[in-house]
Amino acid sequence: MYRAPVEEIAHTLKKIAGLDEAIAAGRFADLSDDLVDAILEEAGKFASTRVAPLLEVGDKHGTPLKDAEVTMPPGWKDVYNEWIGGGWNALTGKEEFGGQGLPMMLAVAALEMWNSGSMAFGIGPTLTLGAIEALEAHATDDLKHTYLPKLVSGEWMGTMNLTEPQAGSDVGALRSRAERADDGTYRIFGQKIFITYGEHDLTDNIIHLVLARLPDAPQGTKGISLFLVPKFLVNADGSLGARNDVFCSGVEHKMGIHGSPTCTMIYGDGFAKDAKPGAIGWLIGEENRGLACMFTMMNNARLAVGIQGVAVAEAAYQKSLAYAQERRQMRAPGWTGEGMSPIIEHPDVQRNLLTMKGLTGAARSIAYACAHALDMARTGAGDDKKHWADRANLLTPVAKAFSTDVGVDVASIGIQIHGGMGFIEETGAAQFLRDARIAPIYEGTNGIQAIDLVQRKLPLDGGNHVKDYIAELRTIGEAVSLSNSAGFGQTAARLQAGFDDLEAATLWLQKTLADGDVSNVLAGATPYLRLFGLAAGASYLAKGALGADNAGRTTLARFFAENLLNETSALKDRVVNGAPSLLGARAALQ
Amino acid sequence: MYRAPVEEIAHTLKKIAGLDEAIAAGRFADLSDDLVDAILEEAGKFASTRVAPLLEVGDKHGTPLKDAEVTMPPGWKDVYNEWIGGGWNALTGKEEFGGQGLPMMLAVAALEMWNSGSMAFGIGPTLTLGAIEALEAHATDDLKHTYLPKLVSGEWMGTMNLTEPQAGSDVGALRSRAERADDGTYRIFGQKIFITYGEHDLTDNIIHLVLARLPDAPQGTKGISLFLVPKFLVNADGSLGARNDVFCSGVEHKMGIHGSPTCTMIYGDGFAKDAKPGAIGWLIGEENRGLACMFTMMNNARLAVGIQGVAVAEAAYQKSLAYAQERRQMRAPGWTGEGMSPIIEHPDVQRNLLTMKGLTGAARSIAYACAHALDMARTGAGDDKKHWADRANLLTPVAKAFSTDVGVDVASIGIQIHGGMGFIEETGAAQFLRDARIAPIYEGTNGIQAIDLVQRKLPLDGGNHVKDYIAELRTIGEAVSLSNSAGFGQTAARLQAGFDDLEAATLWLQKTLADGDVSNVLAGATPYLRLFGLAAGASYLAKGALGADNAGRTTLARFFAENLLNETSALKDRVVNGAPSLLGARAALQ
Repeated sequence: MYRAPVEEIAHTLKKIAGLDEAIAAGRFADLSDDLVDAILEEAGKFASTRVAPLLEVGDKHGTPLKDAEVTMPPGWKDVYNEWIGGGWNALTGKEEFGGQGLPMMLAVAALEMWNSGSMAFGIGPTLTLGAIEALEAHATDDLKHTYLPKLVSGEWMGTMNLTEPQAGSDVGALRSRAERADDGTYRIFGQKIFITYGEHDLTDNIIHLVLARLPDAPQGTKGISLFLVPKFLVNADGSLGARNDVFCSGVEHKMGIHGSPTCTMIYGDGFAKDAKPGAIGWLIGEENRGLACMFTMMNNARLAVGIQGVAVAEAAYQKSLAYAQERRQMRAPGWTGEGMSPIIEHPDVQRNLLTMKGLTGAARSIAYACAHALDMARTGAGDDKKHWADRANLLTPVAKAFSTDVGVDVASIGIQIHGGMGFIEETGAAQFLRDARIAPIYEGTNGIQAIDLVQRKLPLDGGNHVKDYIAELRTIGEAVSLSNSAGFGQTAARLQAGFDDLEAATLWLQKTLADGDVSNVLAGATPYLRLFGLAAGASYLAKGALGADNAGRTTLARFFAENLLNETSALKDRVVNGAPSLLGARAALQ
Repeated sequence: MYRAPVEEIAHTLKKIAGLDEAIAAGRFADLSDDLVDAILEEAGKFASTRVAPLLEVGDKHGTPLKDAEVTMPPGWKDVYNEWIGGGWNALTGKEEFGGQGLPMMLAVAALEMWNSGSMAFGIGPTLTLGAIEALEAHATDDLKHTYLPKLVSGEWMGTMNLTEPQAGSDVGALRSRAERADDGTYRIFGQKIFITYGEHDLTDNIIHLVLARLPDAPQGTKGISLFLVPKFLVNADGSLGARNDVFCSGVEHKMGIHGSPTCTMIYGDGFAKDAKPGAIGWLIGEENRGLACMFTMMNNARLAVGIQGVAVAEAAYQKSLAYAQERRQMRAPGWTGEGMSPIIEHPDVQRNLLTMKGLTGAARSIAYACAHALDMARTGAGDDKKHWADRANLLTPVAKAFSTDVGVDVASIGIQIHGGMGFIEETGAAQFLRDARIAPIYEGTNGIQAIDLVQRKLPLDGGNHVKDYIAELRTIGEAVSLSNSAGFGQTAARLQAGFDDLEAATLWLQKTLADGDVSNVLAGATPYLRLFGLAAGASYLAKGALGADNAGRTTLARFFAENLLNETSALKDRVVNGAPSLLGARAALQ
């Protein structure tokens, strides 16, 4: 069973991702080191003892739909109520609406733990958080006061309604429509698919944020507006009123995260007897500016999904480590104990475990560094704010895609370590892979993230932001070199080679993009993102190993630098030299 | 729905793996090119129209157990009967027992097609084939005449019973026991787990081959004997007699291949009222020499599992390609059509599809080349026989492990191409990953295969066999270079770099092993096997592209050489330089 790695998480926050410096610089008012530790400790306890037991029951029971109502798995509602009772939903909300106003760094650390316990449980509140952010940034005061207190507390949950059958990655292709009503509200009509937690019985009300088009809207992404559509209308006194005309017509049968209801939602079909046709909605932000509002929540949702990759990887690693320590097969070289050795003594199993742990730590560091940048941007001003906003923008696609690829890879290695038992569902190793497999897809496929990185993020600040970032990474390599610690082995030299590859690929992409050669840039997007993640992750692991009492971290950083980071040369080669053979190979695809 | 790629399979057999030369050299009596084509065509038709429709129903229904009896999914028995009626089970069996005596190359080609249709269906007859081989090689004439005709025809099926809870990869740790009876038969007692097709209703009888220990047997692998234990005893006239004391006590709930019953088998527990305690068994081969008999069937089973990796990869590729041609999202650069472009026009999707197709073709070539070596060894004599036996031994672990890793990777990419639909079970993309995930585990985990390769296969023929093999691969690179075909781009140079990496890693491993430094060899086993697979696969794809009318194959071989093969430099580095940081990192594993 999962045990939250509180110490490792705290170390990553403070020593790698920048929390120590941010606190020292007075960025977070009264946040003290002790408070951070206390929050992490409590979150860890809750995740390990209350959330983790939901994992298997969620997988087995799923979320059956009957008469447009979804029943959540046994025990989930109790844990959810306990969870919001502990104030965990309110970590980052604004204080005026009952939130605790804590940094995003703490929120993602806690989020990692919920998702390690159960990814299907963790994803629900992530959507609520997105709704809160969109309302805080763009809603009228009236809407804020009606909805935010209950969303922040978690008494109600929120959803994001983007996808339609013909509009997945391409949001601009959506067709749901909104009509203006005489009273300033709107009537929403259309079908949305893949709506996470679109319907469930955890809360009395569900607040849907829905993208739709007004009749006179321009085509494409510039004609999309965002609406708030509650499941139950809210009376003036805050009590629940009539059922709104939004209903769940189907729940998907998925490969994993069975405890998370993935719903088809029908707006404005007059489904229920007591609901008038047309779902009543309220505009968020301005007409036809819905996509900008949605991006507010999508960016953070991308980071949150990246955290899911880290979370599942951590849980899979823990289970595999425990199994490898217990399971005995054959005698490893040098084994002097009686009988068969635990399989962890076999070098090949060690390679697997070290790969799992190294990739998990690297992905965690990148994701936390992204959260740090968001916090710094939120608390900064002027050039400083701009710098950190750029940093968050740069790291978001990497935090999303690299981490979720890691989640899948690590979960798959975990199955392998379990041998035949890994394929048996009761063991639980297989569920991690089944759960993790969605994360590279939702909130923008990893291919989309890679394209975002090379097309929109490399040009930030005239192309200088990423160069400065690489220069920062290089200072870590130099610190490793100066540390003179024998435990690092060839780490410094390996880091330098990785940075050289990253820099060469970056410059090539920037130049090729400037030349207008878009296809060549897109052809290298995915290898580039992985190259970026490996180089950044390797240097973060090394950074975390600098200083005293870090023998275990030093050996892990070294393993990563000497065994995993060397992939960068092939990745750079794919970026710089791979396009001709790719773009010319369309004929082979038949 | 899967359509057997008959032309591609024929091309790989004839032009890459050596079937043309073997036929020309008269190795296969009256086998003609026309007959090969006719067999492949018919197998392809059966796999596409009869086996493939079993895929989804097998996944949904699974193989429920009730009162020690397993019910197969609806429709499976009919297809199985049709399949054996077509003579497909008898392809390779000896003619004296009703077999067609055809080369292993044709058998694996057909096996690929059955497994592409449904891996859960394809695995059953693979086990029967293993039992046939063990009996042909080691059983008494009496046993042969009683069992082989019905196993060869497929009227009965066979199983392999190795694994016990404490004895997985380490077969020597098994505890099932056998007692000598007065009539020359034996009584078998014990529990076996993970027995594929251990119980089912496809056939009237099931012939179990079971490893067990005699009371006076030495410990470890030298004290294991092999026994034939039929589900129903066979009367002198060939009719079925009493129920034997072997029963299925459980069927595993697995991640995938739900149509394949994975059984716990209880021997000698007196489970049934009419069965006397002690399962009646007959010795195969000599007492305490059971492992040698078992290896006869295990080697071929390893190749067969490798074929499963190829098969699922092919099916996943076909589904993804069809989806990518149909699904429209956004406008790819250069797209001049109306509205959104098919996603296959996006370079990142092309990279995914080309990677799928390239890896699939590479794995297929290696597996078929391994089958070719088996055929050459079987039909050869003296040094020639020895040479080809060594070749089969060298390629078997690569054919098993590289291909099954490819199966998992390609199936996972296939899900990604489908976006959100890939995570929905109805689409079928997810099932390929769930099915494929067992193949790197069973018949010896891929870690075991890698260890086998570096410890037992690199030393073959005093270390010269692998060197000669690499020299053969180099001639393909030279032929590409001499072809002067512009379509190959940098293929020749890339191949040479890959061979250099393979050679350097090989020499380092051979020397390190000779120095007795086993841990360092084992630490590099898995990266080495992948390096071997990439270099061999790349050169086979290039070989298949030499000659006229191969534009599509040339562009694919080039893509592989310029975008995938470059991984070899990092892999070589892990082999040659990776061990210190790995073996020193035990402290990080906690």
